[in-house]
Amino acid sequence: MSLTSSSPLTCAQSASLASHTLCILPLSSRNAALTAIHTALQENKSVILAANATDMTLAHQASANGQLSQSVLKRLDLSRPGKYEDMLKGILDVRDLPDPIGRVDLRTKLDEGLELERVSCPIGVLLIIFEARPEVIANISALAIKSGNAAILKGGKESSHSFEAIARVISHALAGTEVPSDAIQLVKTRDVIDDLLSLDRYIDLVIPRGGNELVRYVKDHTKIPVLGHADGLCSVYLHKDAADIKTMAVNVVMDSKCDYPAACNAAETLLVHESVLTTVLPDVAAALLDKGVSLRCDVKSKAALGECLTKSQAALLQDARAEDYDTEFLDLIIAVKTVPGEHDEAGQSQALATNGHVASSEEGSSDARDAHDPSLLAAIAHINAHSSHHTDCIVTASASAAEKFLSAVDSAGVYWNASTRFADGMRYGFGTEVGISTNKIHSRGPVGLEGLTIYKYKLRGKGHGAGEYGDGEGKRRYLHEKLEV
Amino acid sequence: MSLTSSSPLTCAQSASLASHTLCILPLSSRNAALTAIHTALQENKSVILAANATDMTLAHQASANGQLSQSVLKRLDLSRPGKYEDMLKGILDVRDLPDPIGRVDLRTKLDEGLELERVSCPIGVLLIIFEARPEVIANISALAIKSGNAAILKGGKESSHSFEAIARVISHALAGTEVPSDAIQLVKTRDVIDDLLSLDRYIDLVIPRGGNELVRYVKDHTKIPVLGHADGLCSVYLHKDAADIKTMAVNVVMDSKCDYPAACNAAETLLVHESVLTTVLPDVAAALLDKGVSLRCDVKSKAALGECLTKSQAALLQDARAEDYDTEFLDLIIAVKTVPGEHDEAGQSQALATNGHVASSEEGSSDARDAHDPSLLAAIAHINAHSSHHTDCIVTASASAAEKFLSAVDSAGVYWNASTRFADGMRYGFGTEVGISTNKIHSRGPVGLEGLTIYKYKLRGKGHGAGEYGDGEGKRRYLHEKLEV
Repeated sequence: MSLTSSSPLTCAQSASLASHTLCILPLSSRNAALTAIHTALQENKSVILAANATDMTLAHQASANGQLSQSVLKRLDLSRPGKYEDMLKGILDVRDLPDPIGRVDLRTKLDEGLELERVSCPIGVLLIIFEARPEVIANISALAIKSGNAAILKGGKESSHSFEAIARVISHALAGTEVPSDAIQLVKTRDVIDDLLSLDRYIDLVIPRGGNELVRYVKDHTKIPVLGHADGLCSVYLHKDAADIKTMAVNVVMDSKCDYPAACNAAETLLVHESVLTTVLPDVAAALLDKGVSLRCDVKSKAALGECLTKSQAALLQDARAEDYDTEFLDLIIAVKTVPGEHDEAGQSQALATNGHVASSEEGSSDARDAHDPSLLAAIAHINAHSSHHTDCIVTASASAAEKFLSAVDSAGVYWNASTRFADGMRYGFGTEVGISTNKIHSRGPVGLEGLTIYKYKLRGKGHGAGEYGDGEGKRRYLHEKLEV
Repeated sequence: MSLTSSSPLTCAQSASLASHTLCILPLSSRNAALTAIHTALQENKSVILAANATDMTLAHQASANGQLSQSVLKRLDLSRPGKYEDMLKGILDVRDLPDPIGRVDLRTKLDEGLELERVSCPIGVLLIIFEARPEVIANISALAIKSGNAAILKGGKESSHSFEAIARVISHALAGTEVPSDAIQLVKTRDVIDDLLSLDRYIDLVIPRGGNELVRYVKDHTKIPVLGHADGLCSVYLHKDAADIKTMAVNVVMDSKCDYPAACNAAETLLVHESVLTTVLPDVAAALLDKGVSLRCDVKSKAALGECLTKSQAALLQDARAEDYDTEFLDLIIAVKTVPGEHDEAGQSQALATNGHVASSEEGSSDARDAHDPSLLAAIAHINAHSSHHTDCIVTASASAAEKFLSAVDSAGVYWNASTRFADGMRYGFGTEVGISTNKIHSRGPVGLEGLTIYKYKLRGKGHGAGEYGDGEGKRRYLHEKLEV
C-alpha cells in the first residue's frame, strides 16, 4: 500500500500493473496480508484514535457552524464503543471467507484433448470513493486484497487525519507481505476524482460509498462501471389478504420504517389495498404515530384513518403531495397511498372471475384470480414506476399473490412478509458487503466478495485448430460434453 | 413486435412497460412465440429475399462507387446458400435451449420461517444496434424473447429493406402470441441512436453488433452498460518449450491467423521466445508465407528467419513498426516480436535459480522456475499491455509455464495449445451467442443467453423484522443455513 501524491494517471497505471501481480498470489499470501493488517491496526489503536480525535474536533466545530450534520459526526467517530473492534473483526471475517478466486463453474470437453474451463478471477483495479467513515479504508483494503483486486482509495476531507493514520499503519503492515505496494493506493490530494473517473483504460470498477449526491456525481462523470445505488426508495404493500395477519403487517411495517430510518433499506412508501384501510392500516398507523413517524396520506387513507384513529392521533396525519411517492425521506416520514380495490375497476374484476378461459386455466382459480387481480397489478405498476428498485415488500396471507408480486416487481430484493431492512450482506449471510447495487447487470442487491470477481475462459488443447471442425466431409464435430466441476 | 416511428422516448418507455409483462411469461409462452416467428419466416422466405435483393442491388451500386466494402456486401446477402436456413435453424436452436430464467443458485435459511433465494431474471430492456447483417433481427428477437427481455432494434441503412420485411413478418407472427407487441420494437427512423443512448433510465444494456467504429461510438456516447468488444487483438506466444511440439505450433498459429482473418478472434501478434527463433519459427513462418500472410518482424526475428528461410521467402519479410503490435489487422498480416531469453536478463535468471527461498518452495523446482522465468513474464506483460484482452494463447510443452500464462494473462480467453479462433459461443457449446465481451464485469468472452440475465433476491418470511436480531440479550441470531438449490 502506498499513500500516494502522484498524478492520477501514474496512480492508475501502477495500480493496474500491481493488479497483475496481485491476481496470481495464492490464497495463503492474500490471507497473510490480512492478518498483518489486523495485527498492525490492533497494535496502533491509540495512534489512530488520536488522529480520529483531531478529525472529530474539527468536525464538532464544523457541526457547530452548521456545516456538518449529526449523522456525519456519528459516522466519523471511531471511538464509539465497539466500532474499532468491529473494524478489526471485519478484517478477520473477510480473511476467513472462502477464496472467491479460482472457482471453476463450467467445464466442457469440446473434443478429445480440448477442454474448456470457466474460472473466477479478480476484476482488476477498483476505485473506491468514500465519505466520512474512516473504517472503510480497512474494510475495503481487506475486500480488495482477498479478491485479488488492486484498489485506489479516495476518502472524504472530514476523515483525512484518521484516513492518513490508518493508511500509514496498513502501508507499513503490507510492506512485509507479498502484496505489491502499488496494489492498494490511498489518494490524498484533492480534486483528483474527476481525473480518476476518466481513466477507464486502467480502472475497471468504481464503488462510491456515501450519500446520494456522491453516487449521482460519480455515475454522471464516468464511463467506468459504477457499483452501488443512488437511492433507496423501498415500499411495503399491504395486500387485501393482510387482514388475516395484522400482527405481521404491523411488525413488518414498523421494522421497515423505524429500525433505522436513515438506511437505504428503510421503507419510504406504504401502499394499502382499499379493503384493509379500516382493518389493518389503523393498527399500523397507530404504531407508526406512536414512534413519532409522520404519515403523509392520500385522501382515501386519511379519511379512513380519520374515522378509526383517536382524534389526537388523526390530528397528526398529513396530506401527501405527489412528490412524496418519489421521495427517499431517510427520516421518520412515510408516504401512504391507497391502491383501489377491484370494485373500483368498473366491474373488471367480476368480468375476470366469470371469464371461462381464466377460470378453467390449469393454474387453478386462486392463482388465476391473483394473476389478473387489477389491484395487485396496480400496486406492482406503482412500485416499478416509483421505487428505486432496491427492496420492496408485500404483506399478504396469499401465497399466489405473493409469488406474483415477487416475480413481477423489478427490484433487487422482493420480499414477502419480511422487513425491507433485511436487505444487507451480513444479514444475507455473505459475511461482508461491498455495497448494495441497484444495477441491472453484474451484481444486484447486497454485493459480497463475489461481486468483485469476474471469470475467464481457459482452454487447454493439443494443437487444435478451429478450421478442423464443421459439417463438411472429413470435418470433426464438437463433443460439447459437460464435465463435473 | 412493432415497427415503430414513434419518438425514442416513447419507444423506450413502452419497451420498459412491456418488459414487465414479458418478464413473467412462462417458458411455454416464450417458446411458442419463437415457434411462431420460425414458421412465419419460413413461409415468407420469398418476400424477404425479394426485399433483400433490393438491398443488394443498391449495395452493389454503392460498392461499384467504392462506398461499400466487399465484406459488407457478403454480410448483407441473405440469398447465399444455407444462410436463410441457418437463420431459421438459429431460432429453433434458441427455443430449444434450457430456460435461462427462474434458475435458483442460492438458497439460505436466515432463520426459522425466513428463507432467502437468488433467482435469475431478465435484465429488462436491451438496445441492439447492428450494421449490415439482416438476419441479426431474427437472431436477436429470438434471444431477447427467450430470455424475457424487451428489445429495441436499430439496423443499418444498407439492410433497411430486408430489415423492414423481416420486421413485418415477425410483427405479424408475434401478434398471435402472448408476447406484448411493444416488447420487440424495430426503429426505422434515422438519427435516433444518440437519443436512445441517452435513455439510461429505460434501457438497461446496449449491444452493438458491428465493426470497431460502431462499438467505439456507442461506448463513447452512453452511460448505459455496453456489452461487446471494440477490438480483437489476439496474440500467440511460442514459448521456449514449443520446440518439442513444432507441429502443434504450426497448426495453432496457422489456424489462429488464417482460418478467418477478418474475425475478432484471429491472431494479430506472434510472440516468439528467442530460443525458438531458428527451431520453431521458420516452419511457422514458411507456412504463413505460403498462405500469403505478410510477416512484420522485429530485428531479431527477421535476422533469424533470413538465415533459415529460402531467399525468396526471406525477401517477403517486412519490418515491424512499433504500432504494428497495437494493430488489429483483420487481414493476412501478423506482427512478429522476439521475447528475449533468460541469458539476456543480466544474469537475473541464474540469480533466481540459486535463490534458496525459491528453490525450496513447495511449488517444486520446475514450477518455481516458470513462476520466475523473466521471459515468460515479459511475454505476459507484453500481452497485458498490448492485447485487447479478448483471447491469447501460449504454445508450449510445459504445463507449469502454460498454467502460469493462463492465470496471469488478463484476457477473456486464455489458451494453451489451441487456436484463438475457438473463442466463439457456438464452439464453446453455448448454442448461440449474443456477442463476445471484453468487459471486466457481468459477462466476459462469448456471451450466451446467460449474459442477458441478472438475478433478484426473494425473501419469504412470516412477519420477521431485522430489529429482532443482534448480539444483545433477547436478540435472535441468524442461522444462515445453506439449503439445496
